[in-house]
Amino acid sequence: MTDYLSDLEIAKRSKIRPISSIAEEAGIPVGAVEPYGFYKAKIDTTKIKSQPTGKVVLVTAMSPTPAGEGKSTVTVGLSDAFRQLGDNVMVALREPSLGPVFGMKGGATGGGYAQVLPMEEINLHFNGDLHAITTANNALAAFIDNHIYQGNALNIDPRRISWKRVLDMNDRALREVVIGLGGPFKGVPREDGFDITVASEIMAVFCLSRDIHDLKENIAKMTIGYTYDKQPVTVKDLGVEGALALILKDAIKPNLVQTIEGTPALIHGGPFANIAHGCNSIIATNTARRLADVVVTESGFGSDLGAEKFMDIKARRAGLEPAAIVVVATIRALKMHGGVLKEQLKAEDVEAVKRGIVNLEKHLQNLQQFGVEPVVALNAFVTDTAEEVQAVKDWCADRSIKIALTEVWEKGGAGGVELARLVKEVMADKQDFRPLYELELPVEEKIRTVVQKIYGGDNVVFSDSAKKQLKTIIDNGWDHYPVCMAKTQYSFTDDPKKLGRPTGFEITIRELIPKTGAGFIVALTGDIMTMPGLPKQPAALNMDIDADGHAVGLF
Amino acid sequence: MTDYLSDLEIAKRSKIRPISSIAEEAGIPVGAVEPYGFYKAKIDTTKIKSQPTGKVVLVTAMSPTPAGEGKSTVTVGLSDAFRQLGDNVMVALREPSLGPVFGMKGGATGGGYAQVLPMEEINLHFNGDLHAITTANNALAAFIDNHIYQGNALNIDPRRISWKRVLDMNDRALREVVIGLGGPFKGVPREDGFDITVASEIMAVFCLSRDIHDLKENIAKMTIGYTYDKQPVTVKDLGVEGALALILKDAIKPNLVQTIEGTPALIHGGPFANIAHGCNSIIATNTARRLADVVVTESGFGSDLGAEKFMDIKARRAGLEPAAIVVVATIRALKMHGGVLKEQLKAEDVEAVKRGIVNLEKHLQNLQQFGVEPVVALNAFVTDTAEEVQAVKDWCADRSIKIALTEVWEKGGAGGVELARLVKEVMADKQDFRPLYELELPVEEKIRTVVQKIYGGDNVVFSDSAKKQLKTIIDNGWDHYPVCMAKTQYSFTDDPKKLGRPTGFEITIRELIPKTGAGFIVALTGDIMTMPGLPKQPAALNMDIDADGHAVGLF
Repeated sequence: MTDYLSDLEIAKRSKIRPISSIAEEAGIPVGAVEPYGFYKAKIDTTKIKSQPTGKVVLVTAMSPTPAGEGKSTVTVGLSDAFRQLGDNVMVALREPSLGPVFGMKGGATGGGYAQVLPMEEINLHFNGDLHAITTANNALAAFIDNHIYQGNALNIDPRRISWKRVLDMNDRALREVVIGLGGPFKGVPREDGFDITVASEIMAVFCLSRDIHDLKENIAKMTIGYTYDKQPVTVKDLGVEGALALILKDAIKPNLVQTIEGTPALIHGGPFANIAHGCNSIIATNTARRLADVVVTESGFGSDLGAEKFMDIKARRAGLEPAAIVVVATIRALKMHGGVLKEQLKAEDVEAVKRGIVNLEKHLQNLQQFGVEPVVALNAFVTDTAEEVQAVKDWCADRSIKIALTEVWEKGGAGGVELARLVKEVMADKQDFRPLYELELPVEEKIRTVVQKIYGGDNVVFSDSAKKQLKTIIDNGWDHYPVCMAKTQYSFTDDPKKLGRPTGFEITIRELIPKTGAGFIVALTGDIMTMPGLPKQPAALNMDIDADGHAVGLF
Repeated sequence: MTDYLSDLEIAKRSKIRPISSIAEEAGIPVGAVEPYGFYKAKIDTTKIKSQPTGKVVLVTAMSPTPAGEGKSTVTVGLSDAFRQLGDNVMVALREPSLGPVFGMKGGATGGGYAQVLPMEEINLHFNGDLHAITTANNALAAFIDNHIYQGNALNIDPRRISWKRVLDMNDRALREVVIGLGGPFKGVPREDGFDITVASEIMAVFCLSRDIHDLKENIAKMTIGYTYDKQPVTVKDLGVEGALALILKDAIKPNLVQTIEGTPALIHGGPFANIAHGCNSIIATNTARRLADVVVTESGFGSDLGAEKFMDIKARRAGLEPAAIVVVATIRALKMHGGVLKEQLKAEDVEAVKRGIVNLEKHLQNLQQFGVEPVVALNAFVTDTAEEVQAVKDWCADRSIKIALTEVWEKGGAGGVELARLVKEVMADKQDFRPLYELELPVEEKIRTVVQKIYGGDNVVFSDSAKKQLKTIIDNGWDHYPVCMAKTQYSFTDDPKKLGRPTGFEITIRELIPKTGAGFIVALTGDIMTMPGLPKQPAALNMDIDADGHAVGLF
């Protein structure tokens, strides 16, 4: 049996080029490249003059399993494959959240020979963007509580403050707290809670804004709560949008790094893929489109969540259209959707693969509804057998669906060349991109459209609380926003245990939360956790520094 | 009347040199300079091979007033003056905390023409050190609560956890909170509170460690609380010192910037000057000593707090001796100590100056107890009159005390040349530095020595709670640590209203808090606030970004 190196070991042994050399190759003017150490930079996008004409390749996935399907790995590997084919390519990725790094093993910078470097720094503080967002979020919280403490001129109802504090940390104990205790000099007691930073509306706004000025305007529109008369209170009412934009003035510049093979990568922003839209920033994607002919990017979770939001929220806002879509599938995930238990995934089971393929089928059909032809990337794992792989290839061949086995984890870009060739065929064809719904539809209809057309559900039920919130949304004129569905990623339904391709179900909308800065209405189904906890044996227990001060035990 | 430019305007109009040029002039090997943008860098000190032989000039002050005496400004201006005299000089400063920036106007990067650049970045996120410390602090808190939630194998008493969470924010409402609410899946309810990041013990440890490995060892020794059997629980017991050191692996590298005149400046670490020791990191000071012949540095608040701790805590740990000490005084502060109300400080009052000089006198006498000759820097303000200044000069002349009027705010280094010349005279003489007390003394005696010799008090009283804590300290063998006095900075007593040079008072020690990672015992007198609040009109209301995305309203 072969011994495999860890991702960190592979990363450490890789030859990394100075970031100035990567920037030069990417055609970025020298004055626009602000170095952060030797191998990272922030890009001052105001100094890039070209138009965003590059074509976007979106990488999404079938319904994921807890093991992970390697979507980021395929995204990175596919960009390296384009480079091997001689294309002028960049990859645009989400930046990892620091908190989860200390909990479960598993990075967010790809894997094997399809990684972005320097992985230690990217997985830790990177260039400080998440810290800046945490700071802006919590400064706003402090301004709100200080406003109430200092006389509450705006008449804010402390029981109706929707703005929560955040930390970039998995900290279960902060989910529900009471603050302002200790008497009159320590504030006004009220219920509060902390989310993880990627769940902050500022993260979503950050990723959906065109530039720092647009960011400031969108921040001003954020609703932080309601008055005793139930009127919305915004950041503009508090007068602190300028200060919050100032906190974010450097974070808003996208971060340039490189893949192991030297493909330039922009990594910028990383909102939650359930209560937010789960894509890297518009600024990063459109900057990459100014610099490269092909931009490979990804969306969160499976296509029912991430790709739908990419189309209906991000692409619409950014004025871009995907020229091709890649759907990552794995034999392991197909087997799980075919009914195999997690513990038995290593054993060959061709019939389970065939049963589970209904999940992939639904994702492919969904993407066709957006007018773009999907390509399947079957991401190879060492436990796959030739018969299992052949079963998927045969199924695709019967339906004229393009499929390539990708071996980018093991081989880097060379393992993705076949995929890149198929993607280029699609890109050469005229695609007919369209969002799923028009913004003018009523909010309930937008939700119903997603549930019926994408999830395959029969009906939508709104809780009493969601009905009340719908009235608030209509009364305040917020009903023209797109919807941002918060649903489990493991199933097309709101029950994570229903795998495969369920039918005959209804979806319950528990809450409708207007995000007036980000410009979408979050529709909560089921129990969505916005502050994770740590496991019994956190990954932190294995982490350390070596004699040179470098990371040990980080994946 | 002259119109003066704001500090931010002066900073924006100053010509700033690329950090590579500053580093080269400072003799730092190219491979040790990790750029953060064009004008900041982190220094990999493991790549500097010379020994720390530079002489240290400590800048301290008389008892400060709420207006501020300009100690950082004098520190910066004095370093520029040394440079004008042809000396190979560096300045080592504390890094500002972001939270207070949004509250009151007033930066921490000097002022006028004696500033460090780029002031916008230094006053905001700088190179992320405070964010890293916040993250390490809160990761530890999450590990503690997770340990209890997952079965509490260490038998930690949730009522006796001394480790608090932190934010780099002035957020009054977080002073006292209850966490872990919401039922069995959201943790174990307990009382908690947030401090501002600079009050974290990790900040103190960070500033007192030699390198990343020493930092890890000291972090392992931190006490986070007690078991139900009242035994101390350390970070080592939790096994996360490696992960915490990993979070700090880049922060530990000191930050290189420049003064307006181009003097190289290392800015690194900034612990509270009351519940901690209030000096920049030992790493920064000793790195500067490897690179320059003269290192100008400062300590927090007045000499009774900052300089005493510099001598008894930092210098002892770092193996350094101050070659000269500068005491910053102002006519305004002398008048306040002479009984003038804050509102009337602009009017000439020579008699009040003469009355208030007793405060300065006590500071000078105190510093002589450490065996080093102090030099007075009378820091000029536009409201000073010639007669007031002459009164101070005459008083010094009568006592053979060296004094120079400094005009560095208005003139930069040129305004500090006279001071630099006097300091060089002292440096040429043999000084006889010694700490105030030996570590072997009992804790009560160490405290009594500081109170009697430095504050001029008659006696020390220990509260019942302090007496119990003293027993814990002795039982655990922690009594060999130096003491870190937490006292108001405005008075030699524990009452901020008693100005001048009070006599016949006693000091009450309310609490004794062992900081077993930092290696000192905090002695709390009076009510020390470790989480500030925001004022009614926060400075944030005036902050904004301009058309180019640069700061507006930041001082």
